[in-house]
Amino acid sequence: MIEVTDPDDPRLDEYRFLRTADRRPDRPGGLGLVIAEGTIAVSRMLASRYPVRSMLGVRRKLETLPPVDAPVYVTTAEVMAEVIGFHLNRGVLAMADRPEPLSVSSVIDGARRLVVLEGVGDHENLGALFRNAAGLGVDGVLLGAGCSDPLYRRSVRVSMGHVLAVPFTTLSPWPDGLKLLQDNGFTVMALAPAGAADLSSVTPPVKAAVMLGSEGPGLTAEAIAAADMAVKIPMVGGVDSLNVATAGAVAFYALGLGR
Amino acid sequence: MIEVTDPDDPRLDEYRFLRTADRRPDRPGGLGLVIAEGTIAVSRMLASRYPVRSMLGVRRKLETLPPVDAPVYVTTAEVMAEVIGFHLNRGVLAMADRPEPLSVSSVIDGARRLVVLEGVGDHENLGALFRNAAGLGVDGVLLGAGCSDPLYRRSVRVSMGHVLAVPFTTLSPWPDGLKLLQDNGFTVMALAPAGAADLSSVTPPVKAAVMLGSEGPGLTAEAIAAADMAVKIPMVGGVDSLNVATAGAVAFYALGLGR
Repeated sequence: MIEVTDPDDPRLDEYRFLRTADRRPDRPGGLGLVIAEGTIAVSRMLASRYPVRSMLGVRRKLETLPPVDAPVYVTTAEVMAEVIGFHLNRGVLAMADRPEPLSVSSVIDGARRLVVLEGVGDHENLGALFRNAAGLGVDGVLLGAGCSDPLYRRSVRVSMGHVLAVPFTTLSPWPDGLKLLQDNGFTVMALAPAGAADLSSVTPPVKAAVMLGSEGPGLTAEAIAAADMAVKIPMVGGVDSLNVATAGAVAFYALGLGR
Repeated sequence: MIEVTDPDDPRLDEYRFLRTADRRPDRPGGLGLVIAEGTIAVSRMLASRYPVRSMLGVRRKLETLPPVDAPVYVTTAEVMAEVIGFHLNRGVLAMADRPEPLSVSSVIDGARRLVVLEGVGDHENLGALFRNAAGLGVDGVLLGAGCSDPLYRRSVRVSMGHVLAVPFTTLSPWPDGLKLLQDNGFTVMALAPAGAADLSSVTPPVKAAVMLGSEGPGLTAEAIAAADMAVKIPMVGGVDSLNVATAGAVAFYALGLGR
Protein backbone atom coordinates (compact mmCIF):
# COMPACT_ATOMS: atom_id res chain seq x y z
CA MET A 1 0.00 0.00 0.00
CA ILE A 2 1.20 3.45 -0.95
CA GLU A 3 0.38 6.15 1.57
CA VAL A 4 -0.86 9.37 -0.05
CA THR A 5 -1.45 12.56 1.92
CA ASP A 6 -1.46 15.24 -0.78
CA PRO A 7 -4.78 15.54 -2.64
CA ASP A 8 -2.88 16.98 -5.61
CA ASP A 9 -0.66 13.91 -5.95
CA PRO A 10 -0.52 13.26 -9.72
CA ARG A 11 -0.70 9.51 -9.18
CA LEU A 12 -4.36 10.02 -8.30
CA ASP A 13 -5.16 12.04 -11.40
CA GLU A 14 -7.49 9.52 -12.94
CA TYR A 15 -9.63 9.60 -9.80
CA ARG A 16 -10.38 13.31 -10.30
CA PHE A 17 -13.00 12.89 -12.97
CA LEU A 18 -15.17 10.01 -11.85
CA ARG A 19 -18.24 11.55 -13.45
CA THR A 20 -16.72 11.32 -16.94
CA ALA A 21 -13.82 8.84 -16.68
CA ASP A 22 -16.19 5.91 -17.25
CA ARG A 23 -17.27 7.24 -20.62
CA ARG A 24 -15.82 5.70 -23.71
CA PRO A 25 -12.67 7.48 -24.94
CA ASP A 26 -14.54 8.88 -27.95
CA ARG A 27 -16.93 10.81 -25.65
CA PRO A 28 -16.26 14.17 -23.92
CA GLY A 29 -14.00 13.61 -20.92
CA GLY A 30 -14.10 9.89 -21.54
CA LEU A 31 -11.15 7.79 -20.41
CA GLY A 32 -12.84 4.45 -20.99
CA LEU A 33 -12.15 3.32 -17.46
CA VAL A 34 -14.25 0.93 -15.44
CA ILE A 35 -14.85 2.09 -11.87
CA ALA A 36 -15.92 -0.04 -8.93
CA GLU A 37 -17.06 1.57 -5.68
CA GLY A 38 -17.27 -0.07 -2.29
CA THR A 39 -15.78 -3.32 -1.03
CA ILE A 40 -18.43 -5.58 -2.58
CA ALA A 41 -18.10 -4.22 -6.12
CA VAL A 42 -14.32 -3.85 -5.81
CA SER A 43 -13.91 -7.45 -4.67
CA ARG A 44 -15.97 -8.54 -7.69
CA MET A 45 -13.69 -6.48 -9.91
CA LEU A 46 -10.62 -8.13 -8.39
CA ALA A 47 -12.12 -11.53 -9.16
CA SER A 48 -13.10 -10.56 -12.71
CA ARG A 49 -11.35 -10.51 -16.09
CA TYR A 50 -11.02 -6.72 -15.84
CA PRO A 51 -7.37 -5.63 -15.51
CA VAL A 52 -7.16 -3.47 -12.38
CA ARG A 53 -5.03 -0.34 -12.83
CA SER A 54 -5.10 0.91 -9.25
CA MET A 55 -7.12 1.21 -6.07
CA LEU A 56 -7.75 4.13 -3.75
CA GLY A 57 -9.28 3.92 -0.34
CA VAL A 58 -9.11 4.22 3.40
CA ARG A 59 -7.05 1.60 5.21
CA ARG A 60 -9.98 0.02 7.03
CA LYS A 61 -11.66 -0.83 3.71
CA LEU A 62 -8.54 -1.76 1.78
CA GLU A 63 -7.52 -4.24 4.45
CA THR A 64 -10.66 -6.30 3.83
CA LEU A 65 -9.73 -6.85 0.18
CA PRO A 66 -7.46 -9.48 -1.36
CA PRO A 67 -4.05 -8.43 -2.71
CA VAL A 68 -3.87 -7.01 -6.23
CA ASP A 69 -1.03 -6.65 -8.71
CA ALA A 70 -1.45 -2.87 -9.08
CA PRO A 71 -0.77 0.25 -7.01
CA VAL A 72 -2.99 0.57 -3.95
CA TYR A 73 -3.21 4.13 -2.64
CA VAL A 74 -4.23 4.51 0.96
CA THR A 75 -5.43 7.84 2.30
CA THR A 76 -8.01 9.48 4.55
CA ALA A 77 -11.69 9.96 3.78
CA GLU A 78 -11.07 13.73 3.63
CA VAL A 79 -8.27 13.50 1.04
CA MET A 80 -10.33 11.03 -0.93
CA ALA A 81 -13.29 13.42 -1.00
CA GLU A 82 -11.00 16.24 -2.12
CA VAL A 83 -9.53 14.15 -4.94
CA ILE A 84 -12.78 12.85 -6.35
CA GLY A 85 -14.72 16.05 -5.69
CA PHE A 86 -17.54 14.65 -3.59
CA HIS A 87 -17.95 12.53 -0.52
CA LEU A 88 -18.05 8.84 -1.31
CA ASN A 89 -19.19 6.97 1.73
CA ARG A 90 -18.09 3.60 0.46
CA GLY A 91 -14.44 4.38 1.22
CA VAL A 92 -12.79 2.43 -1.59
CA LEU A 93 -12.52 2.69 -5.36
CA ALA A 94 -10.86 0.57 -8.01
CA MET A 95 -10.11 1.43 -11.62
CA ALA A 96 -9.78 -1.07 -14.43
CA ASP A 97 -9.18 -0.90 -18.13
CA ARG A 98 -11.87 -1.94 -20.52
CA PRO A 99 -10.89 -5.27 -22.02
CA GLU A 100 -11.86 -6.19 -25.55
CA PRO A 101 -15.58 -7.02 -25.80
CA LEU A 102 -16.39 -10.73 -25.62
CA SER A 103 -17.45 -12.56 -28.74
CA VAL A 104 -21.06 -13.73 -28.94
CA SER A 105 -19.93 -17.34 -29.03
CA SER A 106 -17.91 -16.96 -25.84
CA VAL A 107 -21.05 -15.66 -24.11
CA ILE A 108 -23.43 -18.31 -25.38
CA ASP A 109 -21.22 -21.44 -25.55
CA GLY A 110 -22.13 -23.65 -22.63
CA ALA A 111 -24.89 -21.27 -21.49
CA ARG A 112 -28.40 -22.48 -20.76
CA ARG A 113 -29.96 -19.22 -19.63
CA LEU A 114 -29.48 -15.94 -21.44
CA VAL A 115 -30.99 -12.50 -21.21
CA VAL A 116 -31.38 -10.39 -24.31
CA LEU A 117 -32.09 -6.69 -23.94
CA GLU A 118 -33.42 -4.14 -26.40
CA GLY A 119 -33.57 -0.40 -25.78
CA VAL A 120 -32.61 -0.54 -22.10
CA GLY A 121 -31.00 2.87 -21.90
CA ASP A 122 -31.36 3.57 -18.20
CA HIS A 123 -28.11 2.84 -16.37
CA GLU A 124 -29.82 1.91 -13.12
CA ASN A 125 -32.23 -0.49 -14.79
CA LEU A 126 -29.33 -2.05 -16.66
CA GLY A 127 -27.32 -2.48 -13.45
CA ALA A 128 -30.32 -3.91 -11.62
CA LEU A 129 -30.88 -6.38 -14.46
CA PHE A 130 -27.32 -7.66 -14.09
CA ARG A 131 -27.74 -7.98 -10.32
CA ASN A 132 -30.97 -9.94 -10.75
CA ALA A 133 -29.44 -12.02 -13.53
CA ALA A 134 -26.50 -12.97 -11.32
CA GLY A 135 -28.71 -13.80 -8.34
CA LEU A 136 -31.10 -15.93 -10.33
CA GLY A 137 -28.61 -17.90 -12.38
CA VAL A 138 -28.44 -16.25 -15.78
CA ASP A 139 -25.32 -17.27 -17.69
CA GLY A 140 -24.94 -14.29 -19.99
CA VAL A 141 -26.45 -11.06 -21.30
CA LEU A 142 -26.75 -9.95 -24.91
CA LEU A 143 -27.31 -6.31 -25.73
CA GLY A 144 -29.49 -5.60 -28.74
CA ALA A 145 -30.14 -2.19 -30.26
CA GLY A 146 -30.48 0.88 -28.06
CA CYS A 147 -28.90 -0.34 -24.84
CA SER A 148 -26.59 1.72 -22.67
CA ASP A 149 -23.08 0.75 -21.78
CA PRO A 150 -23.23 -1.57 -18.73
CA LEU A 151 -19.72 -0.48 -17.74
CA TYR A 152 -20.82 3.02 -16.76
CA ARG A 153 -20.11 3.72 -13.11
CA ARG A 154 -23.75 3.89 -12.12
CA SER A 155 -24.55 0.54 -13.74
CA VAL A 156 -21.55 -1.08 -12.07
CA ARG A 157 -22.69 0.32 -8.71
CA VAL A 158 -26.36 -0.64 -8.98
CA SER A 159 -25.36 -4.10 -10.19
CA MET A 160 -23.23 -4.49 -7.02
CA GLY A 161 -20.34 -5.24 -9.39
CA HIS A 162 -22.14 -8.09 -11.15
CA VAL A 163 -21.71 -6.48 -14.59
CA LEU A 164 -18.07 -7.42 -14.12
CA ALA A 165 -18.97 -11.05 -13.47
CA VAL A 166 -21.85 -11.91 -15.79
CA PRO A 167 -20.50 -12.20 -19.35
CA PHE A 168 -22.12 -9.85 -21.84
CA THR A 169 -21.65 -8.55 -25.34
CA THR A 170 -23.48 -6.82 -28.15
CA LEU A 171 -25.72 -8.81 -30.45
CA SER A 172 -25.83 -7.50 -33.98
CA PRO A 173 -27.29 -7.12 -36.51
CA TRP A 174 -30.48 -6.43 -34.60
CA PRO A 175 -32.81 -8.27 -34.41
CA ASP A 176 -31.51 -10.69 -37.02
CA GLY A 177 -28.69 -11.73 -34.69
CA LEU A 178 -31.30 -13.61 -32.64
CA LYS A 179 -31.12 -16.24 -35.35
CA LEU A 180 -27.69 -17.16 -34.02
CA LEU A 181 -29.19 -17.98 -30.64
CA GLN A 182 -31.91 -20.07 -32.24
CA ASP A 183 -29.32 -21.89 -34.36
CA ASN A 184 -27.58 -22.74 -31.09
CA GLY A 185 -30.69 -24.31 -29.60
CA PHE A 186 -32.06 -21.38 -27.60
CA THR A 187 -35.77 -20.69 -27.43
CA VAL A 188 -36.06 -16.91 -27.62
CA MET A 189 -38.89 -15.80 -25.34
CA ALA A 190 -40.03 -12.19 -25.68
CA LEU A 191 -41.46 -10.78 -22.48
CA ALA A 192 -44.30 -8.51 -23.52
CA PRO A 193 -47.55 -7.42 -21.85
CA ALA A 194 -49.45 -8.55 -24.92
CA GLY A 195 -47.65 -11.90 -24.94
CA ALA A 196 -49.82 -14.78 -25.96
CA ALA A 197 -48.71 -17.21 -23.27
CA ASP A 198 -48.86 -16.71 -19.53
CA LEU A 199 -45.37 -17.09 -18.07
CA SER A 200 -46.68 -19.40 -15.38
CA SER A 201 -48.05 -21.81 -17.98
CA VAL A 202 -44.80 -22.14 -19.94
CA THR A 203 -42.63 -25.21 -19.50
CA PRO A 204 -39.08 -23.88 -19.27
CA PRO A 205 -37.10 -24.91 -22.34
CA VAL A 206 -33.70 -26.53 -21.91
CA LYS A 207 -31.98 -23.46 -23.32
CA ALA A 208 -33.86 -20.22 -22.88
CA ALA A 209 -33.11 -16.64 -23.92
CA VAL A 210 -35.43 -14.17 -22.21
CA MET A 211 -35.80 -10.96 -24.17
CA LEU A 212 -36.81 -7.73 -22.45
CA GLY A 213 -37.48 -4.25 -23.78
CA SER A 214 -37.37 -0.87 -22.15
CA GLU A 215 -39.95 0.17 -19.64
CA GLY A 216 -42.04 2.58 -21.66
CA PRO A 217 -42.24 1.37 -25.24
CA GLY A 218 -41.28 -2.25 -24.57
CA LEU A 219 -39.88 -4.49 -27.26
CA THR A 220 -40.19 -3.45 -30.88
CA ALA A 221 -42.55 -5.37 -33.11
CA GLU A 222 -39.51 -6.54 -35.08
CA ALA A 223 -37.89 -8.04 -31.99
CA ILE A 224 -41.11 -9.78 -30.93
CA ALA A 225 -41.57 -11.15 -34.44
CA ALA A 226 -38.05 -12.57 -34.39
CA ALA A 227 -38.68 -14.42 -31.10
CA ASP A 228 -39.96 -17.98 -30.85
CA MET A 229 -42.74 -16.99 -28.50
CA ALA A 230 -44.10 -14.03 -26.56
CA VAL A 231 -44.90 -14.50 -22.89
CA LYS A 232 -46.45 -12.20 -20.32
CA ILE A 233 -46.38 -11.90 -16.57
CA PRO A 234 -49.96 -12.13 -15.30
CA MET A 235 -50.72 -8.65 -14.03
CA VAL A 236 -53.66 -7.11 -12.29
CA GLY A 237 -55.88 -5.22 -14.75
CA GLY A 238 -55.07 -1.61 -15.36
CA VAL A 239 -51.74 -1.60 -13.62
CA ASP A 240 -48.52 -0.43 -15.27
CA SER A 241 -46.05 -3.08 -16.14
CA LEU A 242 -43.30 -3.74 -13.63
CA ASN A 243 -39.95 -2.04 -13.87
CA VAL A 244 -37.88 -3.85 -16.52
CA ALA A 245 -35.37 -5.22 -14.01
CA THR A 246 -38.18 -6.50 -11.78
CA ALA A 247 -39.99 -8.07 -14.71
CA GLY A 248 -36.70 -9.72 -15.59
CA ALA A 249 -36.30 -11.11 -12.08
CA VAL A 250 -39.80 -12.59 -12.16
CA ALA A 251 -39.13 -14.19 -15.53
CA PHE A 252 -35.70 -15.54 -14.51
CA TYR A 253 -37.30 -17.04 -11.41
CA ALA A 254 -40.30 -18.45 -13.26
CA LEU A 255 -38.11 -20.11 -15.86
CA GLY A 256 -36.13 -21.76 -13.12
CA LEU A 257 -32.91 -20.16 -14.17
CA GLY A 258 -30.08 -21.52 -12.11
CA ARG A 259 -31.94 -24.61 -10.98
CA MET B 1 -58.53 26.31 -14.07
CA ILE B 2 -57.02 29.37 -12.47
CA GLU B 3 -54.33 31.05 -14.55
CA VAL B 4 -51.27 32.06 -12.48
CA THR B 5 -48.45 34.16 -13.90
CA ASP B 6 -46.72 35.51 -10.77
CA PRO B 7 -44.34 33.02 -9.13
CA ASP B 8 -44.87 34.86 -5.83
CA ASP B 9 -48.63 34.28 -5.88
CA PRO B 10 -49.51 33.30 -2.29
CA ARG B 11 -52.01 30.71 -3.48
CA LEU B 12 -49.02 28.60 -4.51
CA ASP B 13 -47.27 28.86 -1.16
CA GLU B 14 -47.56 25.22 -0.24
CA TYR B 15 -45.77 24.27 -3.45
CA ARG B 16 -42.64 26.18 -2.38
CA PHE B 17 -41.32 23.55 0.01
CA LEU B 18 -41.78 20.25 -1.77
CA ARG B 19 -38.68 18.84 -0.14
CA THR B 20 -40.18 19.16 3.36
CA ALA B 21 -43.95 19.58 2.88
CA ASP B 22 -44.42 15.82 2.75
CA ARG B 23 -42.99 15.36 6.23
CA ARG B 24 -45.35 14.83 9.10
CA PRO B 25 -46.37 18.08 10.82
CA ASP B 26 -44.29 17.18 13.88
CA ARG B 27 -41.07 17.18 11.79
CA PRO B 28 -39.01 20.23 10.73
CA GLY B 29 -40.75 21.97 7.85
CA GLY B 30 -43.38 19.26 7.80
CA LEU B 31 -46.84 20.15 6.52
CA GLY B 32 -48.09 16.57 6.40
CA LEU B 33 -49.10 16.90 2.78
CA VAL B 34 -49.18 14.12 0.24
CA ILE B 35 -47.66 15.09 -3.09
CA ALA B 36 -48.20 13.40 -6.43
CA GLU B 37 -46.00 14.22 -9.42
CA GLY B 38 -46.76 13.54 -13.05
CA THR B 39 -50.00 12.62 -14.75
CA ILE B 40 -49.91 8.93 -13.81
CA ALA B 41 -49.46 9.48 -10.07
CA VAL B 42 -51.79 12.48 -10.05
CA SER B 43 -54.54 10.52 -11.76
CA ARG B 44 -54.13 7.79 -9.13
CA MET B 45 -54.42 10.44 -6.44
CA LEU B 46 -57.62 11.77 -8.00
CA ALA B 47 -59.07 8.25 -7.93
CA SER B 48 -57.97 7.62 -4.34
CA ARG B 49 -59.39 8.30 -0.89
CA TYR B 50 -56.91 11.17 -0.47
CA PRO B 51 -58.65 14.55 -0.35
CA VAL B 52 -57.03 16.72 -3.03
CA ARG B 53 -56.31 20.29 -1.91
CA SER B 54 -55.10 21.70 -5.21
CA MET B 55 -53.23 21.01 -8.42
CA LEU B 56 -50.51 22.93 -10.23
CA GLY B 57 -49.33 22.29 -13.72
CA VAL B 58 -48.94 23.26 -17.33
CA ARG B 59 -52.10 23.27 -19.43
CA ARG B 60 -51.05 20.40 -21.68
CA LYS B 61 -50.74 18.06 -18.70
CA LEU B 62 -53.74 19.33 -16.75
CA GLU B 63 -56.00 18.83 -19.74
CA THR B 64 -55.34 15.10 -19.71
CA LEU B 65 -56.66 14.75 -16.15
CA PRO B 66 -60.24 14.34 -14.95
CA PRO B 67 -61.98 17.25 -13.20
CA VAL B 68 -61.37 17.74 -9.48
CA ASP B 69 -63.29 19.58 -6.79
CA ALA B 70 -60.33 21.77 -5.78
CA PRO B 71 -58.41 24.73 -7.21
CA VAL B 72 -56.39 23.87 -10.32
CA TYR B 73 -53.59 26.36 -11.02
CA VAL B 74 -52.33 26.50 -14.56
CA THR B 75 -49.02 28.16 -15.36
CA THR B 76 -45.88 27.83 -17.46
CA ALA B 77 -43.02 25.39 -16.87
CA GLU B 78 -40.81 28.38 -16.03
CA VAL B 79 -43.11 29.79 -13.34
CA MET B 80 -43.57 26.29 -11.97
CA ALA B 81 -39.81 25.80 -11.69
CA GLU B 82 -39.50 29.13 -9.95
CA VAL B 83 -42.22 28.29 -7.44
CA ILE B 84 -40.99 24.85 -6.51
CA GLY B 85 -37.31 25.74 -6.74
CA PHE B 86 -36.18 23.14 -9.23
CA HIS B 87 -37.18 21.93 -12.65
CA LEU B 88 -39.81 19.23 -12.54
CA ASN B 89 -40.10 17.67 -15.92
CA ARG B 90 -43.37 15.93 -15.19
CA GLY B 91 -45.29 19.18 -15.53
CA VAL B 92 -48.04 18.55 -13.00
CA LEU B 93 -48.35 18.28 -9.22
CA ALA B 94 -51.23 17.58 -6.89
CA MET B 95 -51.40 18.07 -3.14
CA ALA B 96 -53.66 16.13 -0.80
CA ASP B 97 -54.23 16.04 2.92
CA ARG B 98 -53.28 13.00 4.90
CA PRO B 99 -56.44 11.18 5.87
CA GLU B 100 -56.68 9.24 9.11
CA PRO B 101 -54.69 5.99 8.94
CA LEU B 102 -56.73 2.92 8.07
CA SER B 103 -57.54 0.38 10.76
CA VAL B 104 -55.86 -3.01 10.50
CA SER B 105 -59.21 -4.70 10.05
CA SER B 106 -60.13 -2.44 7.13
CA VAL B 107 -56.87 -3.50 5.42
CA ILE B 108 -57.22 -7.23 6.04
CA ASP B 109 -60.97 -7.81 5.83
CA GLY B 110 -61.71 -9.47 2.53
CA ALA B 111 -58.02 -9.60 1.62
CA ARG B 112 -56.35 -12.80 0.43
CA ARG B 113 -52.86 -11.51 -0.22
CA LEU B 114 -51.00 -9.24 2.15
CA VAL B 115 -47.48 -7.93 2.40
CA VAL B 116 -45.94 -7.30 5.79
CA LEU B 117 -42.77 -5.21 6.01
CA GLU B 118 -40.20 -4.84 8.77
CA GLY B 119 -37.38 -2.30 8.79
CA VAL B 120 -37.89 -1.08 5.22
CA GLY B 121 -36.57 2.42 5.73
CA ASP B 122 -35.54 3.25 2.19
CA HIS B 123 -38.21 5.39 0.49
CA GLU B 124 -37.43 4.10 -2.97
CA ASN B 125 -37.59 0.47 -1.94
CA LEU B 126 -40.86 1.14 -0.16
CA GLY B 127 -42.32 2.83 -3.22
CA ALA B 128 -41.11 0.03 -5.49
CA LEU B 129 -42.70 -2.54 -3.17
CA PHE B 130 -46.07 -0.81 -3.51
CA ARG B 131 -45.72 -0.68 -7.28
CA ASN B 132 -44.90 -4.39 -7.43
CA ALA B 133 -47.66 -5.20 -4.94
CA ALA B 134 -50.21 -3.37 -7.07
CA GLY B 135 -49.04 -4.99 -10.27
CA LEU B 136 -49.05 -8.49 -8.88
CA GLY B 137 -52.35 -8.41 -7.03
CA VAL B 138 -51.52 -7.75 -3.38
CA ASP B 139 -54.58 -6.55 -1.46
CA GLY B 140 -52.89 -4.63 1.34
CA VAL B 141 -49.64 -3.73 3.06
CA LEU B 142 -48.90 -3.80 6.79
CA LEU B 143 -45.98 -1.87 8.18
CA GLY B 144 -44.17 -3.45 11.09
CA ALA B 145 -41.40 -1.85 13.12
CA GLY B 146 -38.80 0.37 11.46
CA CYS B 147 -40.54 1.21 8.21
CA SER B 148 -40.53 4.63 6.60
CA ASP B 149 -43.60 6.61 5.81
CA PRO B 150 -44.93 5.46 2.41
CA LEU B 151 -46.53 8.86 1.86
CA TYR B 152 -43.20 10.64 1.43
CA ARG B 153 -42.91 12.23 -1.97
CA ARG B 154 -40.18 9.92 -3.17
CA SER B 155 -42.14 6.81 -2.23
CA VAL B 156 -45.25 8.12 -3.93
CA ARG B 157 -43.21 8.85 -7.07
CA VAL B 158 -41.36 5.53 -7.23
CA SER B 159 -44.61 3.68 -6.58
CA MET B 160 -46.15 5.46 -9.60
CA GLY B 161 -48.86 6.61 -7.20
CA HIS B 162 -49.77 3.10 -6.09
CA VAL B 163 -49.19 3.90 -2.41
CA LEU B 164 -52.36 5.94 -2.77
CA ALA B 165 -54.28 2.95 -4.10
CA VAL B 166 -53.04 -0.09 -2.18
CA PRO B 167 -54.46 0.05 1.38
CA PHE B 168 -51.83 0.08 4.11
CA THR B 169 -51.49 0.72 7.80
CA THR B 170 -49.19 0.11 10.75
CA LEU B 171 -49.22 -3.25 12.51
CA SER B 172 -48.47 -3.02 16.22
CA PRO B 173 -47.37 -4.25 18.63
CA TRP B 174 -44.51 -5.73 16.64
CA PRO B 175 -44.14 -8.60 15.97
CA ASP B 176 -46.98 -9.77 18.22
CA GLY B 177 -49.51 -8.07 15.95
CA LEU B 178 -48.88 -10.86 13.41
CA LYS B 179 -51.09 -13.00 15.64
CA LEU B 180 -54.03 -10.94 14.42
CA LEU B 181 -53.32 -12.00 10.84
CA GLN B 182 -53.03 -15.63 11.88
CA ASP B 183 -56.30 -15.39 13.82
CA ASN B 184 -57.86 -14.17 10.61
CA GLY B 185 -56.70 -17.19 8.64
CA PHE B 186 -53.52 -15.84 7.07
CA THR B 187 -50.41 -17.97 6.76
CA VAL B 188 -47.53 -15.64 7.57
CA MET B 189 -44.59 -16.50 5.31
CA ALA B 190 -41.27 -14.93 6.20
CA LEU B 191 -39.01 -14.42 3.19
CA ALA B 192 -35.48 -15.07 4.40
CA PRO B 193 -32.32 -16.34 2.69
CA ALA B 194 -32.01 -19.01 5.38
CA GLY B 195 -35.66 -19.99 4.96
CA ALA B 196 -36.28 -23.71 5.33
CA ALA B 197 -38.58 -24.08 2.34
CA ASP B 198 -37.85 -23.23 -1.26
CA LEU B 199 -40.45 -20.74 -2.49
CA SER B 200 -40.98 -22.81 -5.62
CA SER B 201 -41.93 -25.87 -3.58
CA VAL B 202 -44.58 -24.12 -1.49
CA THR B 203 -48.25 -24.59 -2.30
CA PRO B 204 -49.76 -21.12 -2.03
CA PRO B 205 -52.11 -20.94 0.95
CA VAL B 206 -55.61 -19.56 0.48
CA LYS B 207 -54.75 -16.48 2.52
CA ALA B 208 -51.07 -15.53 2.52
CA ALA B 209 -49.15 -12.73 4.19
CA VAL B 210 -45.63 -12.41 2.77
CA MET B 211 -43.23 -10.81 5.23
CA LEU B 212 -40.09 -9.04 4.02
CA GLY B 213 -37.25 -7.37 5.88
CA SER B 214 -34.79 -4.70 4.89
CA GLU B 215 -32.05 -5.40 2.39
CA GLY B 216 -29.04 -5.62 4.65
CA PRO B 217 -30.03 -7.18 7.96
CA GLY B 218 -33.22 -8.85 6.73
CA LEU B 219 -36.01 -9.83 9.08
CA THR B 220 -35.30 -9.96 12.79
CA ALA B 221 -35.19 -13.35 14.50
CA GLU B 222 -38.29 -12.32 16.44
CA ALA B 223 -40.26 -11.64 13.28
CA ILE B 224 -39.18 -14.93 11.70
CA ALA B 225 -40.09 -16.81 14.87
CA ALA B 226 -43.56 -15.26 14.84
CA ALA B 227 -44.20 -16.40 11.24
CA ASP B 228 -45.81 -19.68 10.28
CA MET B 229 -42.99 -20.59 7.95
CA ALA B 230 -39.79 -19.21 6.45
CA VAL B 231 -39.29 -19.46 2.71
CA LYS B 232 -36.38 -18.57 0.46
CA ILE B 233 -35.95 -17.68 -3.16
CA PRO B 234 -33.52 -20.16 -4.71
CA MET B 235 -30.40 -18.11 -5.42
CA VAL B 236 -27.14 -18.88 -7.09
CA GLY B 237 -24.43 -19.60 -4.53
CA GLY B 238 -22.47 -16.68 -3.21
CA VAL B 239 -24.68 -14.01 -4.67
CA ASP B 240 -26.20 -11.20 -2.61
CA SER B 241 -29.88 -11.37 -2.04
CA LEU B 242 -32.06 -9.44 -4.42
CA ASN B 243 -33.21 -5.93 -3.65
CA VAL B 244 -36.14 -6.15 -1.22
CA ALA B 245 -38.69 -4.86 -3.74
CA THR B 246 -37.47 -7.34 -6.35
CA ALA B 247 -37.55 -10.21 -3.88
CA GLY B 248 -41.09 -9.15 -3.05
CA ALA B 249 -42.10 -9.21 -6.70
CA VAL B 250 -40.71 -12.71 -7.14
CA ALA B 251 -42.57 -13.91 -4.04
CA PHE B 252 -45.85 -12.22 -5.03
CA TYR B 253 -45.57 -13.84 -8.44
CA ALA B 254 -44.62 -17.26 -7.08
CA LEU B 255 -47.52 -17.28 -4.65
CA GLY B 256 -49.86 -16.52 -7.48
CA LEU B 257 -51.05 -13.31 -5.94
CA GLY B 258 -53.82 -11.86 -8.01
CA ARG B 259 -54.66 -15.11 -9.74
